[in-house]
Amino acid sequence: MTCLEDYPPEVRAEVGQVRQSVCDLHAELPRWGLVVWTAGNVSQRLHSADLFVIKPSGVRYDELTPESMVVCDLDGNLVDGTRSPSSDTAAHAYVYRHMPKVYGVVHTHSTYATAWAARGEEIPCVLTMMGDEFGGPVPVGPFAIIGDDSIGRGIVETLRASRSPAVLMCNHGPFTVGKDATAAVKAAVMVEEVARTVHMAMQLGDPLPIPQDRIDALYDRYTNVYGQH
Amino acid sequence: MTCLEDYPPEVRAEVGQVRQSVCDLHAELPRWGLVVWTAGNVSQRLHSADLFVIKPSGVRYDELTPESMVVCDLDGNLVDGTRSPSSDTAAHAYVYRHMPKVYGVVHTHSTYATAWAARGEEIPCVLTMMGDEFGGPVPVGPFAIIGDDSIGRGIVETLRASRSPAVLMCNHGPFTVGKDATAAVKAAVMVEEVARTVHMAMQLGDPLPIPQDRIDALYDRYTNVYGQH
Amino acid sequence: MTCLEDYPPEVRAEVGQVRQSVCDLHAELPRWGLVVWTAGNVSQRLHSADLFVIKPSGVRYDELTPESMVVCDLDGNLVDGTRSPSSDTAAHAYVYRHMPKVYGVVHTHSTYATAWAARGEEIPCVLTMMGDEFGGPVPVGPFAIIGDDSIGRGIVETLRASRSPAVLMCNHGPFTVGKDATAAVKAAVMVEEVARTVHMAMQLGDPLPIPQDRIDALYDRYTNVYGQH
Amino acid sequence: MTCLEDYPPEVRAEVGQVRQSVCDLHAELPRWGLVVWTAGNVSQRLHSADLFVIKPSGVRYDELTPESMVVCDLDGNLVDGTRSPSSDTAAHAYVYRHMPKVYGVVHTHSTYATAWAARGEEIPCVLTMMGDEFGGPVPVGPFAIIGDDSIGRGIVETLRASRSPAVLMCNHGPFTVGKDATAAVKAAVMVEEVARTVHMAMQLGDPLPIPQDRIDALYDRYTNVYGQH
Repeated sequence: MTCLEDYPPEVRAEVGQVRQSVCDLHAELPRWGLVVWTAGNVSQRLHSADLFVIKPSGVRYDELTPESMVVCDLDGNLVDGTRSPSSDTAAHAYVYRHMPKVYGVVHTHSTYATAWAARGEEIPCVLTMMGDEFGGPVPVGPFAIIGDDSIGRGIVETLRASRSPAVLMCNHGPFTVGKDATAAVKAAVMVEEVARTVHMAMQLGDPLPIPQDRIDALYDRYTNVYGQH
Repeated sequence: MTCLEDYPPEVRAEVGQVRQSVCDLHAELPRWGLVVWTAGNVSQRLHSADLFVIKPSGVRYDELTPESMVVCDLDGNLVDGTRSPSSDTAAHAYVYRHMPKVYGVVHTHSTYATAWAARGEEIPCVLTMMGDEFGGPVPVGPFAIIGDDSIGRGIVETLRASRSPAVLMCNHGPFTVGKDATAAVKAAVMVEEVARTVHMAMQLGDPLPIPQDRIDALYDRYTNVYGQH
Repeated sequence: MTCLEDYPPEVRAEVGQVRQSVCDLHAELPRWGLVVWTAGNVSQRLHSADLFVIKPSGVRYDELTPESMVVCDLDGNLVDGTRSPSSDTAAHAYVYRHMPKVYGVVHTHSTYATAWAARGEEIPCVLTMMGDEFGGPVPVGPFAIIGDDSIGRGIVETLRASRSPAVLMCNHGPFTVGKDATAAVKAAVMVEEVARTVHMAMQLGDPLPIPQDRIDALYDRYTNVYGQH
Repeated sequence: MTCLEDYPPEVRAEVGQVRQSVCDLHAELPRWGLVVWTAGNVSQRLHSADLFVIKPSGVRYDELTPESMVVCDLDGNLVDGTRSPSSDTAAHAYVYRHMPKVYGVVHTHSTYATAWAARGEEIPCVLTMMGDEFGGPVPVGPFAIIGDDSIGRGIVETLRASRSPAVLMCNHGPFTVGKDATAAVKAAVMVEEVARTVHMAMQLGDPLPIPQDRIDALYDRYTNVYGQH
């Protein structure tokens, strides 16, 4: 087994930074109401080595420390850490192996996104903020359970066929990706927000559709112009 | 009447620890939105004697202290404490007398679980996290009111016929059990979360069923593998 | 005009205590999600004189101090305070004049209770905690607007015909009463909780009715036995 | 390009005060649950010059400081600040150019208001607090996306035809206005509250209408009498 001491100093330095960042980002999950108890996890891939940092399994959010974060290789094997990695580690690892631009992955069971997932129903793109963030509907991935690569494969195949950084895994909940863990957490926050808002809209009637060319214009502007440069 | 001074020092020491723990765990109930005002209670049974520690009646959460927690025997008689025990004490005591592996009991009126209870309708197992935590649907217990053993008997009979650590008592609310008070509080948090998520799923259509063998696989893995060992 | 300096010292002392208590209790309204911005008010009647203490008009919750609380006589005339009393003062005063056992009144626009009020629909007694706290359904009062005694009269006539300490004023929101302001705040918290829970229950079907003799038994026990004595 | 140093001292002094005030008011948006992540913005126009202060683009709420607030002229050009102005700046500027009594503008994607906007459905005036605050229904503006003046024009044309300080822009979300940023934030809080309450009322039946003369009486009293004078 490889261990972290075998890696060069710049990798160990990046591990330290990413442990801090991933630990801090876990606090965003309860803050935005995305998780209860221990049910959600954030990971970030390193740039200096084929490793990623993820939450330990079954530990509560207010007990997490940077040191308790676990380091794994891209096959999901434990490289450093005194605790077992999250039980969703294999799915995170599969995503990193097959989506080379993804450096952050988040999984939650946030209420409204999971409700859409329980019906196996994609969230239609009826809000301008969905055009901005998701570039279309939020897609549904297959039913799959822990034990082999079927969750990871379902995430990757669904995301590759979509502009969305979020997928609703059937009967399970959302997985989101991004260029780092912060972007994946933002996508997890936004997918719950649009899941909730479109849910409310549909309870009392039919939302108005947004024409595809308007969705394209929103997505293009947001992706290329928005934010600080 | 027996009093705590008649018990050996190790019992009195365990009472002190459990009072602290049960007091702390009451703070989880408002934290996760499970209770308003004084409407919920946590208890934990001792290992060193046939006693349990429970919330005093009608006291608000932010006024609770370890010292204000009440000690009762397994018939629900007051053994130590300056206040009356919770009005649900008889139900907790009945559970401890009849379920020897249970060392923690929680009762709340959490909104969504109580809404299912008001219809007398079990929560179907349509989420992978329900397979994990409950091993199937969350069952409904009979209508019963305070005054005899009918609440406790309804809880025990319903839980014995199910894998679930939670029962929805008809028109009343959830009771949950566990190997200690922490596990019972976790079950109370999770039953509200699944009650809410499945409620939302059913508002806009029909959730997809999960095949029984997949539920069994989820429950088996979660019970035997999950968390830190 | 009478002023507070004309009252004996024991009245001025009670005013000081009640100002503190009423100020503190206003913090419970946002805490339990019953109000936004300035939309809700608490008052308490004195025992030593025909006066009550109420929130000033249009002041935000985190700017309230004991000193900013306003003292009025039972006709709603200002007796002490540098600010205008709440625009609901006439309704509070009417209740105190006509319900001699009431020493606390609360008014909010809490979401679910106000939603029932918008339909002019009473909340059916389908939860054991409603039997405990309300002794039956939560009744609806008439449509009335500020300008004369019609709000106060509507509250009093509706509450006199009911066991409930809460009334849903049509298209407006809940008013609650109690033996002091704390009891009225508790009733305001509980009416929102049962409004929300029964709303959720009814969204997916029909709640099971509770037989009247069981409601009577719950109400009798709760009124006469519950809490610390 | 004009810069802030070219303005007289009283303008620079007002900029400093308004930066502080607009920064503080952004904290109200997450406090009242109106926004997630960076999705919302507040601006206030100056009285001493044709300038306004607005949130920088894509910055998170807890990273905002008075210094990070951006100053623009009424055409939306950057006058002072190290960051890009909010991507909604053109819409705020259009409102200030065409509604001379408006000195505060707020935009959010608050859940319930946005759900009504997704259906393109006005919120009917069925609550006395809606009569008070909005003087009638909350109107819907046209579908428009960023890129020209169509959002600003849609806001202004809709608000001019209504008493309401809030407009629901189709598929997008609410914009609110006021005599300063505080008043616009209050309107943003209130529009979400009435959107939520009327949503809940309509889920289980039909709200009772309020006669127009009663709405007029409520609006007149609230506009002319309410609050501290």
